[in-house]
Amino acid sequence: MSDRILLAHGSGGTLAHRLVEERFVKPLLNPVLSKLDDAAVVDFAGRLAFTTDSYVVNPIFFPGGDIGRLAICGTTNDLAMSGARPVYLSLSFIIEEGFLLTDIDRIISSIRETTEEAEVKIVTGDTKVVDRGSADKVYINTAGIGVVPEGVSLSGRNAQPGDKVLLSGPIGDHGIAVMSKREGLDFSTKVESDCAPLCEMVAAMIAASPKIHCLRDPTRGGLATTLNELASQSNVRIVIEEERIPVRDEVLAACEMLGFDPLYVANEGKLVALVPASDAERVLAAMRKSKYGKEAVLIGEVKEGSSRVVMKTSLGTSRLIDMLTGDLLPRIC
Amino acid sequence: MSDRILLAHGSGGTLAHRLVEERFVKPLLNPVLSKLDDAAVVDFAGRLAFTTDSYVVNPIFFPGGDIGRLAICGTTNDLAMSGARPVYLSLSFIIEEGFLLTDIDRIISSIRETTEEAEVKIVTGDTKVVDRGSADKVYINTAGIGVVPEGVSLSGRNAQPGDKVLLSGPIGDHGIAVMSKREGLDFSTKVESDCAPLCEMVAAMIAASPKIHCLRDPTRGGLATTLNELASQSNVRIVIEEERIPVRDEVLAACEMLGFDPLYVANEGKLVALVPASDAERVLAAMRKSKYGKEAVLIGEVKEGSSRVVMKTSLGTSRLIDMLTGDLLPRIC
Repeated sequence: MSDRILLAHGSGGTLAHRLVEERFVKPLLNPVLSKLDDAAVVDFAGRLAFTTDSYVVNPIFFPGGDIGRLAICGTTNDLAMSGARPVYLSLSFIIEEGFLLTDIDRIISSIRETTEEAEVKIVTGDTKVVDRGSADKVYINTAGIGVVPEGVSLSGRNAQPGDKVLLSGPIGDHGIAVMSKREGLDFSTKVESDCAPLCEMVAAMIAASPKIHCLRDPTRGGLATTLNELASQSNVRIVIEEERIPVRDEVLAACEMLGFDPLYVANEGKLVALVPASDAERVLAAMRKSKYGKEAVLIGEVKEGSSRVVMKTSLGTSRLIDMLTGDLLPRIC
Repeated sequence: MSDRILLAHGSGGTLAHRLVEERFVKPLLNPVLSKLDDAAVVDFAGRLAFTTDSYVVNPIFFPGGDIGRLAICGTTNDLAMSGARPVYLSLSFIIEEGFLLTDIDRIISSIRETTEEAEVKIVTGDTKVVDRGSADKVYINTAGIGVVPEGVSLSGRNAQPGDKVLLSGPIGDHGIAVMSKREGLDFSTKVESDCAPLCEMVAAMIAASPKIHCLRDPTRGGLATTLNELASQSNVRIVIEEERIPVRDEVLAACEMLGFDPLYVANEGKLVALVPASDAERVLAAMRKSKYGKEAVLIGEVKEGSSRVVMKTSLGTSRLIDMLTGDLLPRIC
């Protein structure tokens, strides 16, 4: 049993201290985290962005990522969507008794790599252990703090008629990668999750135009749900063109097989930007130059109207795109 | 089934939006939270304290509190232990499919009351739903941000020989309250959890003496584990006197029946302070004047020596007090 998590690892006692010091703090070491006080204390001045997400993805390891990479990308991306540069993260584990210590190490190693890529530091954390059957392997929460640069003001409420709708790349990769692994499906071309930190691309976009109105990452509920959120928050009509929305062939094939609409499938490394028409080309160019935006495209426009999303289909008709209803893909993130 | 949580409540779609807007945002409403962007944006200047905890307590409702009150107290107390005034919290739920919506309301109502008492705002949040059997009812994560006043520098590393050890009240109440409820035990006098926000007391203590060296709340692992952490971080010997440590009669009786040592039983509304001898009386007086410190006492002293805790027993002998080993009380917080 010594290679597995025991209830005593969550007790606050000696085993818990050893677990935290050897398997969490050592690999993620930085001067703030190593103090091991009840709270991290750091200097901060300016406009602060603050967000949180819990990650319950099943399975915890999937093509293109794992729950650790997801927990860093998801939260740093939420910060980036407010225009912030992510700076500090908290990291909290809920672990099921019996979980393999080597899987903890694998997750922490992935977390370390992703924090280095996103240039963010984990400065505080927590570990809880629950009895066998009271969780499914491991759940992770990350909360994040970022700095919003002077002059940047992004919100889902800022969309204006005339704005162009930009999408950073093909949709549906994450949802299909997780579902195919969960269901044991085998496609001729393997679909990998797009799970990636978008903060570097967002910084380049803001440098290209500080006038960007809204950014949002289409995670749970997919592109359709995200566009509906923005249309509703800003009380505008968003019109997108089906032909312009990139979907990989293998994702489309999987969606057809599984009965999914790629518009509703989750992404973890994509963003939607609503940008004044005058700056759209410049922002699109900045996206295409960055690592995770090479396939960025313009997919539509914001119009006068109230809280709806309309798609011009490849047949030339118009279709109302609703928010996701029901539970298409539980535990996708 | 409409009175229970469905998987679709975690999908990011319409049901998820309705759950969040009606049952979370409306009762907890403030101008930042109501924006519903991916991250909350607020102004901040100064030294920032940041902490996180996940709460997996079983049962979720117990005498003297519930998982909601615990999630606010635990995290604001961790901030307070760094000398910070808690300001902003995040709130993230992992909910098991089938959980009663009325229990969500009950928890949120308790969260609202406790945030009002602690004068802290919930500004961002997240909700995940997992399939039945993949969690035990509900788990909550809160992360918190606080402001550390100028000139305050508290750390477990700051203890000095000569410091007095102050304890804010009787120990063991929380652990025994939770265990008695979980095991269905019935004591002639009901034990209630001490679960409480300590930030007001801490502010009064700091006003009485900015020279306090360490504060820590003896939660998981109890007073014995907390004193061991401080002795180890500061590399000092801490000597406490058994006769001075307050334990309620009913807690002592329960501990004897269950085979627990109250020194290792969790508290959720107590703190330990290590304070220079010159200021100890003043700090103690400030504690006794505040709502949750009326029974505060001096229990010992910091001495030269290395990383150990010694207790002078009521029989006149000395006993080495170790950190908790094993899993005395799983899922106590």
